[in-house]
Amino acid sequence: MSQAQIPETANKGLENIVAITSEISTIFDVTLLYRGYTIEDLSANCGFEEIVHLLWHGKLPNTSELAQTKKDLFAGMQLPKEIFPILESIAKTNNHSMAKLRTALSYYGLFDQKAEDLSPEGVRAKAARTTGAIGPIVAAISRMEQGQRPIDPVSGKSVAWNFLNMIRGKEPNAEEEKLFDTALVLHADHELNASTFTARVVASTTSDYYSDMVAALGALKGPLHGGANEQVMLMLKEIGSYAQVDAFIEDAVNAKKKVMGIGHRVYKNGDPRARILKEMSVQICKKAGLEDYHRMLVRIQEQMEAKKGLMPNVDFYSGLVYTALGLRPRDFTPIFAVSRISGWSAQVLEQYANNRIFRPRAFYVGKTDSKSTPIGSR
Amino acid sequence: MSQAQIPETANKGLENIVAITSEISTIFDVTLLYRGYTIEDLSANCGFEEIVHLLWHGKLPNTSELAQTKKDLFAGMQLPKEIFPILESIAKTNNHSMAKLRTALSYYGLFDQKAEDLSPEGVRAKAARTTGAIGPIVAAISRMEQGQRPIDPVSGKSVAWNFLNMIRGKEPNAEEEKLFDTALVLHADHELNASTFTARVVASTTSDYYSDMVAALGALKGPLHGGANEQVMLMLKEIGSYAQVDAFIEDAVNAKKKVMGIGHRVYKNGDPRARILKEMSVQICKKAGLEDYHRMLVRIQEQMEAKKGLMPNVDFYSGLVYTALGLRPRDFTPIFAVSRISGWSAQVLEQYANNRIFRPRAFYVGKTDSKSTPIGSR
Repeated sequence: MSQAQIPETANKGLENIVAITSEISTIFDVTLLYRGYTIEDLSANCGFEEIVHLLWHGKLPNTSELAQTKKDLFAGMQLPKEIFPILESIAKTNNHSMAKLRTALSYYGLFDQKAEDLSPEGVRAKAARTTGAIGPIVAAISRMEQGQRPIDPVSGKSVAWNFLNMIRGKEPNAEEEKLFDTALVLHADHELNASTFTARVVASTTSDYYSDMVAALGALKGPLHGGANEQVMLMLKEIGSYAQVDAFIEDAVNAKKKVMGIGHRVYKNGDPRARILKEMSVQICKKAGLEDYHRMLVRIQEQMEAKKGLMPNVDFYSGLVYTALGLRPRDFTPIFAVSRISGWSAQVLEQYANNRIFRPRAFYVGKTDSKSTPIGSR
Repeated sequence: MSQAQIPETANKGLENIVAITSEISTIFDVTLLYRGYTIEDLSANCGFEEIVHLLWHGKLPNTSELAQTKKDLFAGMQLPKEIFPILESIAKTNNHSMAKLRTALSYYGLFDQKAEDLSPEGVRAKAARTTGAIGPIVAAISRMEQGQRPIDPVSGKSVAWNFLNMIRGKEPNAEEEKLFDTALVLHADHELNASTFTARVVASTTSDYYSDMVAALGALKGPLHGGANEQVMLMLKEIGSYAQVDAFIEDAVNAKKKVMGIGHRVYKNGDPRARILKEMSVQICKKAGLEDYHRMLVRIQEQMEAKKGLMPNVDFYSGLVYTALGLRPRDFTPIFAVSRISGWSAQVLEQYANNRIFRPRAFYVGKTDSKSTPIGSR
């Protein structure tokens, strides 16, 4: 259509614009659904590997399907040897952990001789390999940053167990494994957030799987998207103690300052993932000597609900969970990606299966009648 | 809003949805405008460095502003030494040239200690450095792929001159320089195409400049977006000779097959950039012994207009221009990026200046009442 036919109002942020139809995940009633299952059901009854299969195939796996998914993920965990010198050189730079992961995953994609294969089987194979690989990549960079050597994955162990072992150099106990596995389940997919949308826009050009994922990592890196859980931990440190919470919140509310991890554009009755993490983290926080932080978060939650009617989102408790598990704040957003890549993969599979290139319009509000003049007269 | 309030029709591909307002470029009447200047005016009267300044600052530069822009771009052309071993390792992999460039640019960004600076001055400084650097990166990878050493940029020469010299290892004459410079001018920006939209979506999370550009490279890589000019050259080879054109087109039209480089979703009266390249390329095609290919393209254009009412787009003649300049087809899409990064940079500057995160909705058409069962019973 010509400029004259373009509606004169831009849909800023594309708010309330429906960009796709999807069968993968949705915010429904007061909860989050993956493929029709509530997040409460899935986080209580299924491991991350089952969720991966559910997202990619539309159904929970039976025993042999789950065995195959685990096998594929483990194959991916074994990184190609050639990548380690590059990871070393990436780790040495002084930059944002997500910029490093973006670079590492882009490089990793160069080793796939069939990177351009966009068939459903081809993309699923890449997704399994890459979802397996991203945890070891994050762990390797994290350890190299601290002058330590990467740790090999252990066969027969879960993605959650292996990740904690590889990044900490310390095997998790059953409680730690379950808690981290739940965190992976909760973060796997979330409708059309900015990184998922980015992945689908890139996929819509029929670009390859790795370009989609690398772009999504770049979007997740943005402080308005990923990274809030790191900010929540900084906020707790700034507040200092339980006794200071009420005054801090009162000041923040009066100054109309954003409180990190509170509120969500879509959930109005609170984020079910926050409810799950809040409950699950009580015990581990006690053991890790972080119960004061947990009490502070609960108090902030109560105050924000009372004063502003706002509820916590998934980022509110996740940073504390990761801290209790002995993880570093700078690795929190990469850890988000370790899980979310499963959702991004499902979403680009859906995009490739029924594609139309994203080509919205801009409403032009600039000049229309400029004429160049010789540089000497400008 | 709740699921029930979401309109039930997805805006597939976001066609005709206005996502932003912009002052940068638009398709206006029968031509393309950058900041209000017609592309005919700019390509006839301005060099690429002036266009870069125009896009980033909203006005054509005066003499001292142009000198500063050239200085900044030249500083960017001098790549950090540490990047060459990585470029070597990237060049050695057997993968798509845009996957290599995506990786190289992501790595390049790690050297910017102020990568997270999103101030207008900060982003403009990054844009100048990176727009300077991308040509040398493309040239270095291209030469390394052929077992050759990278060539240093020459001070006092244009971006176009330096790029041709660095990638070919042969200084361009004045006619070659002007033709390539015009190609850079024509490709610099183009409203809200998929890669530009991608860059703005990533920027909307307040992610950093390099994440924006890396994501855009991934989108430009897609065959539905960049890469058509490479396909046009393959089509010419497939047709073989002028005598075969009419039969080929008749077959393609009857079989409803897409003819590469023909048609555009937005231009209905033909792409002004194609008109400019068609004229400008006559002489160089003669000198390069490619006049048969040029005649074939003109004949395809006539036939497609007569039979289908479709006109060529910018990709239709650009591949032939690059071939006449001695460039390899696999470098065509990276060359597109060498120019387009200037437009992406202008667009993310505009996004950061008036931002709202892109968060469209999905209309959920999946199940809503699944219940997990024990794995043994699945």
